Amino acid sequence: MALLVRTSRDRSAAWRTALHQAAPDLDIRVWPECGDPAEITALLTWKAPPDLVQRFPNLRVIFSEGAGVDQFLSLDLPETVSLVRIVDPALTGMMVEYGTWATLALHRRIPAYQRAQAAHEWKGLPDMLARDRRVGVLGLGVLGRALLERLRLFGFDCAGWSRGGHVLDGVMCFAGAEGLQPFLARTDILICLLPLTDETRGILSAAHFDAMPRGAALINCGRGGHLVEQDLLDALASGQLSHAILDVTTPEPLPVDHPFWDHPGVTITPHVASDTTPASAAAQVIENLKCLQRGEAPVGLVDRQRGY
Amino acid sequence: MALLVRTSRDRSAAWRTALHQAAPDLDIRVWPECGDPAEITALLTWKAPPDLVQRFPNLRVIFSEGAGVDQFLSLDLPETVSLVRIVDPALTGMMVEYGTWATLALHRRIPAYQRAQAAHEWKGLPDMLARDRRVGVLGLGVLGRALLERLRLFGFDCAGWSRGGHVLDGVMCFAGAEGLQPFLARTDILICLLPLTDETRGILSAAHFDAMPRGAALINCGRGGHLVEQDLLDALASGQLSHAILDVTTPEPLPVDHPFWDHPGVTITPHVASDTTPASAAAQVIENLKCLQRGEAPVGLVDRQRGY
Repeated sequence: MALLVRTSRDRSAAWRTALHQAAPDLDIRVWPECGDPAEITALLTWKAPPDLVQRFPNLRVIFSEGAGVDQFLSLDLPETVSLVRIVDPALTGMMVEYGTWATLALHRRIPAYQRAQAAHEWKGLPDMLARDRRVGVLGLGVLGRALLERLRLFGFDCAGWSRGGHVLDGVMCFAGAEGLQPFLARTDILICLLPLTDETRGILSAAHFDAMPRGAALINCGRGGHLVEQDLLDALASGQLSHAILDVTTPEPLPVDHPFWDHPGVTITPHVASDTTPASAAAQVIENLKCLQRGEAPVGLVDRQRGY
Repeated sequence: MALLVRTSRDRSAAWRTALHQAAPDLDIRVWPECGDPAEITALLTWKAPPDLVQRFPNLRVIFSEGAGVDQFLSLDLPETVSLVRIVDPALTGMMVEYGTWATLALHRRIPAYQRAQAAHEWKGLPDMLARDRRVGVLGLGVLGRALLERLRLFGFDCAGWSRGGHVLDGVMCFAGAEGLQPFLARTDILICLLPLTDETRGILSAAHFDAMPRGAALINCGRGGHLVEQDLLDALASGQLSHAILDVTTPEPLPVDHPFWDHPGVTITPHVASDTTPASAAAQVIENLKCLQRGEAPVGLVDRQRGY
């Protein structure tokens, strides 16, 4: 058995080093030097190579290089191949950093102050206490729960929405289709941390923006596919939404002539909210390989019916 | 005895309401309707009116409307007048919000991503884990300690410096003149939360910037007088500092032709990091009045020799 690493060139060396440190006896190979393809039983990658199943007939597990796995869902993988996403403290920590930064920036009206700076204007704007600011997180997986736990410490009025329902300390939890409208109606700052599935594609749309309080704001750390871009432009134009911070777009990179770039109501970061750190995540990959060898379920195993 | 409120016109009504709720029997007057000046024993204000001592011969206490009191130190107040600053949970909470926002923005290279957005460029930059980012807070009063406590939760490598020395859980503490250089030498992101005194005026200067790691960043939430502005411009030009987030300037408002406004390495907010909320702070003013009547020391009593 061998683990094949197929990541961007500048990361593959870090992965090889970190994996070797965590498991010195493991046969680690780095794409494109695969050796005998029949020996490859595990693949670590962000995107699947073409003809994946034919090429590696003994493949048993794919480790996604990140928290998302939507890029693998259309591949029609055989049931014998497990799909596992990264659940890593460093990756979670980065998402908490980004989500906290973006929430505080919107709460404290930083985009308006940046427009004022460009106009050489010194003028304080009315403040709102955190306890009066209603923050809502779409998606209550590992990342959403960790972010809400941090935001609660600032005293925000916190809520969360998920498909299946959760109970979280100090967070008003909404569930399912019937819970979405009341969740949105009480949310001033909405943070999308959903997985991208057929059910969540396009969830950030006009109908849902209209359900929010006028002047609400959006943070999308999910996938570009969650957002209906024209609906966001319309909501910003009408004032229904006041600002959007987008870390993900469709497509990526965002085309150079896209209206988001110069829009005063849009802040763009290039899909950097959270990133896998090989030095931290390698240990989890190795632990999961051992789980699979023992016939146990690995941490982060994806339910391919649900899509996450 | 009467309490005179002398704040900006749009805040005085909120103060009167909040103070009246906290102490329905208190004689509250709002500038300029002072009534008999001899009856005024307490004054709540951000700036002292002219001829303060002559005008109110029975004044016993001045409540600064904020956390800073440097604006009163040159007044040569008689010893019989106590000077008290606001120590209020809402004011502390706002400073923790602002300091966390600014630290995360610098840690996650948001200023560089904003320049990239203006150029329509989609390009991720190398990340650093919070545990490798050395954050340092100048000033370990109520605000500095609260901010460090929050930043520690993100895993930052935290240090603090104060004149007298402190011991804080999980924070490397430096003290006094001899501790300043080693503190600066290990600080990638420096946050100034000092009181403005003769000893701290101009502390953010070339000699101290040069003691920091190359490419370090600055957040000034203290007073404009802490910063030698030309030294900051020089340090940004040489690359010794990479960015500065300034909530305070000299003078305020920042003059419309000041080079900070258009500098790509400077983010300006108009002295909004933290603000006193009458609804929250009134209770402390009333409690402190009662302390003084009982002959006890109020919370936030200023040592006029130290200047804070």
